[in-house]
Amino acid sequence: MLRVAGGIAAPHGFRAAGVASGVKRSGRSDLSIIASLTECDGAGVFTTNRVRAAPVTLGAERLARSPSQLRGILTVSGVANALTGPEGIDDNRRLLDAAETELGFPAGSLLPACTGVIGPRLPVDRIIAALPQLRAALDASGDGAERAAHAILTTDTKAKVASVRARLADGTVVRVGGMAKGSGMIAPRLAPLHATTLAFLTTDARVRAPALARALAHGAESTFNMLSVDGDTSTNDTAYVLANGAAGGKYADEDRAFAAAIHAVLESLARQVARDGEGATKLLTVHVTGARTLDDARAAARAVVGSTLVKAALFGADPNVGRIACALGYSGAKLDPDRLDVSITRPRQSVPLIVRGRPAPSLENGGGARVRDLLRQLDEVPLEVRLHEGRASATAWGCDLSYAYVQINAAYRS
Amino acid sequence: MLRVAGGIAAPHGFRAAGVASGVKRSGRSDLSIIASLTECDGAGVFTTNRVRAAPVTLGAERLARSPSQLRGILTVSGVANALTGPEGIDDNRRLLDAAETELGFPAGSLLPACTGVIGPRLPVDRIIAALPQLRAALDASGDGAERAAHAILTTDTKAKVASVRARLADGTVVRVGGMAKGSGMIAPRLAPLHATTLAFLTTDARVRAPALARALAHGAESTFNMLSVDGDTSTNDTAYVLANGAAGGKYADEDRAFAAAIHAVLESLARQVARDGEGATKLLTVHVTGARTLDDARAAARAVVGSTLVKAALFGADPNVGRIACALGYSGAKLDPDRLDVSITRPRQSVPLIVRGRPAPSLENGGGARVRDLLRQLDEVPLEVRLHEGRASATAWGCDLSYAYVQINAAYRS
Repeated sequence: MLRVAGGIAAPHGFRAAGVASGVKRSGRSDLSIIASLTECDGAGVFTTNRVRAAPVTLGAERLARSPSQLRGILTVSGVANALTGPEGIDDNRRLLDAAETELGFPAGSLLPACTGVIGPRLPVDRIIAALPQLRAALDASGDGAERAAHAILTTDTKAKVASVRARLADGTVVRVGGMAKGSGMIAPRLAPLHATTLAFLTTDARVRAPALARALAHGAESTFNMLSVDGDTSTNDTAYVLANGAAGGKYADEDRAFAAAIHAVLESLARQVARDGEGATKLLTVHVTGARTLDDARAAARAVVGSTLVKAALFGADPNVGRIACALGYSGAKLDPDRLDVSITRPRQSVPLIVRGRPAPSLENGGGARVRDLLRQLDEVPLEVRLHEGRASATAWGCDLSYAYVQINAAYRS
Repeated sequence: MLRVAGGIAAPHGFRAAGVASGVKRSGRSDLSIIASLTECDGAGVFTTNRVRAAPVTLGAERLARSPSQLRGILTVSGVANALTGPEGIDDNRRLLDAAETELGFPAGSLLPACTGVIGPRLPVDRIIAALPQLRAALDASGDGAERAAHAILTTDTKAKVASVRARLADGTVVRVGGMAKGSGMIAPRLAPLHATTLAFLTTDARVRAPALARALAHGAESTFNMLSVDGDTSTNDTAYVLANGAAGGKYADEDRAFAAAIHAVLESLARQVARDGEGATKLLTVHVTGARTLDDARAAARAVVGSTLVKAALFGADPNVGRIACALGYSGAKLDPDRLDVSITRPRQSVPLIVRGRPAPSLENGGGARVRDLLRQLDEVPLEVRLHEGRASATAWGCDLSYAYVQINAAYRS
């Protein structure tokens, strides 16, 4: 597998565009399209929040009804279209109808997504008025993928894109592209649906919808579902994957290289989302090994990246071993406090923080100051936790809690 | 039931004291004693964190072994005595032995508690050297209860005390007193043990240990377990109740007025802890009605007070209805988003925020500005949530998330 350029439009037969339709008062781009030249199979996973935004309801319906006649994804940023009742669903459907007509796509072939302020209705007429501009941008070649990735952002500071090329078992070379957004209200929830922030994947591999659904759900479990910025599971979390088969070859439904490519793109996007968490100054990765079960490993890793106190300590470059142990203790994972090991583990450096359940001796007598210096320098802090209870492992991603997080989220109508 | 003065020493036969033993570098008081003139029955509930501090292990052991020969509670603040292994338990036992000798109490009659930094060992010799001073303070009358309540604090800005007088079914007048601490690492966990921050209750009612255990567990469920400051369940959470029977009368094991008095003291302390959450500028109370089950009501109330985004919005006086609906949606409670009602409900004022699942019309056209003004003025924000799914209700307490929270917790060795 190779990383390649192109983002969401790296797979053959996909184009993308993003424009400003006036949903955002700031004038920033807010309308994003991903479109395939031909019909796609598709799959999606959605928030488990009981308060579901209109596009989530509508997207799930469309995928259930016609998972093999899809042409693209239309995203509005700035308004979530949540808490808008049946009118919100009508609004979004009217927008999709107009976009399908504008693009010459069959009815029901566009999937919807929205992100932004909860409560207001979609300004449908204003968005519809921008569709010709969106279509023109889509027809032009160039930086459409990049513009599409920018047009789905809200409080994000950076676009998140990834794309890879992989060779399948039958020799076919396929591409997987992806883009994502998310910086607040991020804490995916597992069963029954595997929730995420917004994450869209495209591929030119030939894959049927049920196999796409499996690859997406499986990939999301160990990537987007291991991500926490603030513990809040959104009303709008959505991940979609579209496969148009443009690369040809045999069906890749069971191909391991294909699943690995989906996973790689999801993991890259999840890390980018964590690193760009609202107000984040540091990426925190927690790798748990030696857990009794996979669920234990995931729970332990997620508890540490989700701990408000660990996050605040990280912002202060404080190697606060008590808060890490505390989070592991309430994670629910089986552990013996007297056998716990925790370290900052980098490629050529391992700094012990907890050794057999005690603060590492190296933290004493000025050693703590050296670790604080190290934490201050790192923009990615890789914690390794060894539970010594079994063989399962998992990784979770998060970020620190800064003044800027409070500022961003205390401001009116963020 | 009447509120009375006296705090933890309001019940007859109890005395209390607090002194500075040098555990805290700041020189603030850090050693607290509650003592009964006669033997007590006692009960306790402890953190469900798998990483348990030494005093938690030791306190649970002592309660199990001799729940009816107790004389008091000895608390050290400044050091948690957690992540200290078997040596930590030996340290704490040695401290209790010395205190029992100093006070002339039988071996095993003092219950331990600690709160503070996780990792360091207890400076036992230094604390033992302060025991004569503690004993002298206990013998003196005066403001011992107040000093005891101060000596258990860490980042708290205020002591938390409450005391009530109640008349039991047989006519006996009894008193219940309480003191608590807690401002960070606060998010109690339920089964199997009902966790809390530090909360100590005394009573002069005649109650046997098993009935005390029931009253404490039951009372904590709807008070301390409905409290969230930062979502972190501590290694040291402990609640104790001691009953010395000095009021005489019949056994009050099943007396409803006694249970109500315990509940009232716990609720008062829980509210005081929430209001003094680290960096808090506002108390948030969430009252959920119309839930299908009690568990649903509690989950819904707890999700709202626990939401980082709701807390940040509250700090910014932002009536962010989307974040409230979002938290209710992921709480797990059964709800129909289109029937949800949320309001700020005060004694002579009800301000609708969500009406039948939509942002209240009154928030539009400048109405939002009026609500922001109201939120700015309130130092207690009482949210009422109506789910219309059944008849169960519950209340949870929390606070806003401020810059000061980040500052307090990002500072080294907070």
